[in-house]
Amino acid sequence: MFVYAFPTTADGQVKEPANLRDLGEPLIDHSEGQLFLNEAFKIMMEEVLCKGTDVKQKVSHKSLTSPLCEIAVSSLNKCHPRFFNQQFGGVDYHALAGRFLTETLNTNLFTYEVAPVFVLMETEVLRGLRQLVGWTEGDGIFCPGGSTSNMYAMNLARYRLFPEVKSQGVWSLPRLTIFTSPESHYSVKKGAAFLGIGTDNVILVKVDDGGHMIPEDLDTKINVAKSLGAVPFLVSCTSGTTVQGAFDPLDRIADVCEKHKLWMHVDAAWGGSVLFSEQHRHLMKGVDRANSVAWNPHKMLIAGLQCSALLLQDTTNLLKRCHSANATYLFQQDKFYDVNLDVGDKSVQCSRKVDCLKLWLMWKAVGSTGLAERVDKAFFLVRYLVEQMKKREGFHLLRDVKYVNVCFWFIPPSMRGKEGNADYQDRLAKVAPVIKERMMKQGTMMVGYQPLGNKVNFFRVIVFSPLVSQKDMDFFLDEIERLGNDL
Amino acid sequence: MFVYAFPTTADGQVKEPANLRDLGEPLIDHSEGQLFLNEAFKIMMEEVLCKGTDVKQKVSHKSLTSPLCEIAVSSLNKCHPRFFNQQFGGVDYHALAGRFLTETLNTNLFTYEVAPVFVLMETEVLRGLRQLVGWTEGDGIFCPGGSTSNMYAMNLARYRLFPEVKSQGVWSLPRLTIFTSPESHYSVKKGAAFLGIGTDNVILVKVDDGGHMIPEDLDTKINVAKSLGAVPFLVSCTSGTTVQGAFDPLDRIADVCEKHKLWMHVDAAWGGSVLFSEQHRHLMKGVDRANSVAWNPHKMLIAGLQCSALLLQDTTNLLKRCHSANATYLFQQDKFYDVNLDVGDKSVQCSRKVDCLKLWLMWKAVGSTGLAERVDKAFFLVRYLVEQMKKREGFHLLRDVKYVNVCFWFIPPSMRGKEGNADYQDRLAKVAPVIKERMMKQGTMMVGYQPLGNKVNFFRVIVFSPLVSQKDMDFFLDEIERLGNDL
Ligand SMILES: Cc1ncc(COP(=O)(O)O)c(C=O)c1O
Ligand SMILES: Cc1ncc(COP(=O)(O)O)c(C=O)c1O
Repeated sequence: MFVYAFPTTADGQVKEPANLRDLGEPLIDHSEGQLFLNEAFKIMMEEVLCKGTDVKQKVSHKSLTSPLCEIAVSSLNKCHPRFFNQQFGGVDYHALAGRFLTETLNTNLFTYEVAPVFVLMETEVLRGLRQLVGWTEGDGIFCPGGSTSNMYAMNLARYRLFPEVKSQGVWSLPRLTIFTSPESHYSVKKGAAFLGIGTDNVILVKVDDGGHMIPEDLDTKINVAKSLGAVPFLVSCTSGTTVQGAFDPLDRIADVCEKHKLWMHVDAAWGGSVLFSEQHRHLMKGVDRANSVAWNPHKMLIAGLQCSALLLQDTTNLLKRCHSANATYLFQQDKFYDVNLDVGDKSVQCSRKVDCLKLWLMWKAVGSTGLAERVDKAFFLVRYLVEQMKKREGFHLLRDVKYVNVCFWFIPPSMRGKEGNADYQDRLAKVAPVIKERMMKQGTMMVGYQPLGNKVNFFRVIVFSPLVSQKDMDFFLDEIERLGNDL
Repeated sequence: MFVYAFPTTADGQVKEPANLRDLGEPLIDHSEGQLFLNEAFKIMMEEVLCKGTDVKQKVSHKSLTSPLCEIAVSSLNKCHPRFFNQQFGGVDYHALAGRFLTETLNTNLFTYEVAPVFVLMETEVLRGLRQLVGWTEGDGIFCPGGSTSNMYAMNLARYRLFPEVKSQGVWSLPRLTIFTSPESHYSVKKGAAFLGIGTDNVILVKVDDGGHMIPEDLDTKINVAKSLGAVPFLVSCTSGTTVQGAFDPLDRIADVCEKHKLWMHVDAAWGGSVLFSEQHRHLMKGVDRANSVAWNPHKMLIAGLQCSALLLQDTTNLLKRCHSANATYLFQQDKFYDVNLDVGDKSVQCSRKVDCLKLWLMWKAVGSTGLAERVDKAFFLVRYLVEQMKKREGFHLLRDVKYVNVCFWFIPPSMRGKEGNADYQDRLAKVAPVIKERMMKQGTMMVGYQPLGNKVNFFRVIVFSPLVSQKDMDFFLDEIERLGNDL
């Protein structure tokens, strides 16, 4: 146990501290501390960054040196090119340098006076992202994750329609409903629960075979909700669904939102980065008609956790009006600078980490074209992977791949051609978990599986790390076969 | 502008990427990247950590070398011993090393399979913090800040009483009310607004002269609310109020909560660290009777942003029941390990940063006694500061100092003895902003001011950085006099 024995509580009397060394002097020894930090930095460079990017190393492994070193080597290495598991992974050195600087400065992003550089930088980065959406004006904020960005959008939409909710709560409002597809991220439901709207008031709109929300069904469901006395107020579309990577048809959904005067939110946490790519940004055609967009550079752009932007088309200061508390101890109005620069009151947080610097630095270093190149490369590699899968027996895609999520079943030789058997689906459901267990125990790579609707467990491989090559794609397929051929 | 000109949108056709260098090879050059990171690390060591802790350097200053260096030097230096501004500042090298490692690993804390070490470490750190509260069992989670921890407590209290809120929203519930003091943190109101409860349903309980919530008034207000048909469900006490550092009388409030069966939440974001100190933990006597405690090691313990724990006495898995979405793509039930280790569904976030490592490392390095020493030293220095203030003319304390917040007016010589003048308060209100402006323009130190209730602008100095010495206290007073004596 690392928690040291705690001395029994005193009698409540404040007595002179006896155990303090020299009270006139600082408690922290700088030269010792800086030596430690240097040592720690070396360990990170050697154990994580050098070995982590070396494919000959296992994805996870153990050793026993200093605690730091131990943590470094016994943690899963997400910088490893064969970490195909979730929507993050890989390392960008510029972003990492930005993250180190953020940690070193420990700036709190609430007022201009304590964070002048970062208040301006956040404004700039948000403007840059908004430009890619197609907005010359607007607002925005960095949130601690896409789930929070999605919640913010809900709260803003609700407040725009019924500003009294801020003081009176939901009791003063008619029953509100949110519309989204069954393939949208679970944060829509979590957000509805947290905000007091309730998951039952999240109405699921049908999707087509490709997993895209069907605008006609949206229109129908809105009408049904209205006829039941509810007030539809928000449609949460997804650009890049979590599992299958589908992009909802934004332009056609915008028509429905306009018709019914609903807030259109685009959850582009996962897919937003296609906006950098000239070739692929058409997937989000119509995004400029949205009211809000959530976009996570911590996913495809590997800016590093946490980096999620909520972008708004609004120019009426809705964000601040909706979230402000006007605390006098922070947001005094008699400051000697423009108090509009005190961005803190746009947030429901108080202390807020600087999440923009890492993205800013990476963007500056490789340019929009460099980021576009990463997006394009991911699409290219996915196409390569899919082609290779089609050439091999035993790999069955769930559907056509439109983004960088590749969902597939691996059918072991013993099951091929037996699709008609009664126990086929049950047996198939057990294949992915066994392969996954073997993979994790051997530590050669990392990939996730899940069921979806009536589809039994399938693998979802996500390809986007700029570290990945065609060789890694081949390795991936070989490895699945090696681990699963005897099942 | 750093955002590069964006090429006009293509015709929607997916064509072969032409500008990709060698598609078979990774896009990131490791040796180049590692050189950059080394360089960046040197800049941080030199520009922030060495210069930042040197009192001969200004608190903010400018130069023009690399962008990183420029950001480093033009950002306010919160590691500086004369940054007395907010409730964070100072650097702990062990915590910083932990933060660098966190950034390097980029671990996402949702499942055991991607974050085995950190899932276990978070559990351990939470257990350690709970022990200090006095609980041998319980639950908890790290949140992105104390405001979020406070919101979680509200949501849990609401759900415990009315679990149907999760699916049906607030409409299915009677009007709920929250009780807190007018000196509590604004996040209580922000949280009530965000969760659909509304700020009008936050009922302010009277405080005594010392800024402590009055339990008898709490009891009265609860009865009044009930008689008006509302359902009181939560009392949010504060241990260490933001401005004045008051500790609400937890034991007596617990009696009232027990009587009315209300959830007792203790917002100890700022004051919680007194629990480390044998001498000062009596300030929170009764905290073990609470249902939940929010505690920010990123404040007094300088663990670094963000580090906020929500601690719960609950052993019924309330956190997971209240927040879970059971997304099959992350939280499959057919994994080969104990799925209770998949902590992600306790959170309303999806991606979640590792916030425990920095605290764990610091705690391990200096021990509970080392952390207690820091707390005791801060109290000692504050007492020294207050004694010095009393020896000098012109420093007027708002009230007795019980914690490390020292609130005072500086009365310039021209105003002394003129308390009876009609314009006295108006003139006094203008003193702090002018001194602050001069201080910021000269960059010698940093301290905040604010009005509170009917009290005009006063300074609030916060003393807790382990880097601070008695000399800095003397400097602080000299400097206020130097900047304000001619007013
Ligand atoms: C489509 C989508 N939206 C939102 C989120 C949530 O983002 P975060 O993990 O940053 O909370 C995710 C994360 O997987 C996602 O895939
Ligand atoms: C008493 C109190 N509670 C809560 C908070 C909010 O914590 P955070 O800034 O981490 O959101 C603060 C911050 O100043 C505080 O002083």
